[in-house]
Amino acid sequence: MKAGGAIELGESKSASSTPKIGGVNKGVSILDFILRIIAFLGTLVSAIAMGTTRERLPFFTQFLQFRAEYDDLPTFTFFVVANSVVCAYLVFSLALSIFHIIRSNAKRSRIISIFFDTAMLALLTAGASAAAAIVYLAHKGNAKANWFAICQQFNSFCERISGSLIGSFVGVVVFILLILLSAAALSRR
Amino acid sequence: MKAGGAIELGESKSASSTPKIGGVNKGVSILDFILRIIAFLGTLVSAIAMGTTRERLPFFTQFLQFRAEYDDLPTFTFFVVANSVVCAYLVFSLALSIFHIIRSNAKRSRIISIFFDTAMLALLTAGASAAAAIVYLAHKGNAKANWFAICQQFNSFCERISGSLIGSFVGVVVFILLILLSAAALSRR
Repeated sequence: MKAGGAIELGESKSASSTPKIGGVNKGVSILDFILRIIAFLGTLVSAIAMGTTRERLPFFTQFLQFRAEYDDLPTFTFFVVANSVVCAYLVFSLALSIFHIIRSNAKRSRIISIFFDTAMLALLTAGASAAAAIVYLAHKGNAKANWFAICQQFNSFCERISGSLIGSFVGVVVFILLILLSAAALSRR
Repeated sequence: MKAGGAIELGESKSASSTPKIGGVNKGVSILDFILRIIAFLGTLVSAIAMGTTRERLPFFTQFLQFRAEYDDLPTFTFFVVANSVVCAYLVFSLALSIFHIIRSNAKRSRIISIFFDTAMLALLTAGASAAAAIVYLAHKGNAKANWFAICQQFNSFCERISGSLIGSFVGVVVFILLILLSAAALSRR
């Protein structure tokens, strides 16, 4: 990996850009920074909201206590892991974002940023939509497959898991904007 | 929308680029074209394989015939729609890809291309991973939620829906590569 050297190379080659374009790119980089904080908060809240979901029903039999936790369903575990990974990535990417504010004509570091943003977009979308598919099933059930709607019993559990999807989908939209911003900044060098 | 004019503007501004960089970008554009055809075939096969899935069990009662079709589960309908939309988009994007092979220094059209590629990546990932979550459930079931594995009865149905995910996930990987290639071509202008 010679990413560090590559970044420097990108710097020195683009030093002849006009100051006006540098100013626009600085604005884009600041917007990038703000959007990353929004996405960070969204994925953090999603991971915590899903990860702390559990419900115990007030009645139980001798052998069985009725309780629901997020890790009863593997898809929700994947959702929590995906959100946590993206959340951790966003913290590190803030450093790169600050670097872009200071040196607004960087080139290679923006390509690296676009690549990882795209990968994280795919991961976050996968987690969010897989969880959404299961949440839909929990709400509506499916008569053809004989899967019953569990939300009739586990009401607050269902509200919690539905709500925790929101932050994740906000994150998806923000990532699409981030990639667009990076591409625009690259082209304006 | 003045996209057409913007593309022309991007052209005329970058006419002073060196021929060598133009040659590299032409190679990148040809690779872009090939990757789009691969993604097109992947999503087409996925949509057709899922859309034509149905199984009738050889036994039936007076009131009920046991059959499974893809549209018994709304998630699979979404999967077929998402794959079809992405497939149609890829056909149109081939035209833009040819444009990039001819004029390898285009700028705005590449940003437009990155934006739509990113949106389509999100759509395709959402469809594929939501369907994967349901396919997993069909195979394994979930004891906690009282959802039974339907694959024990509908064996060939399950094999078909599992297989049809492959093309879609190939498409997701290709889209990540496409976005990376476009970003690299933009930076090399």
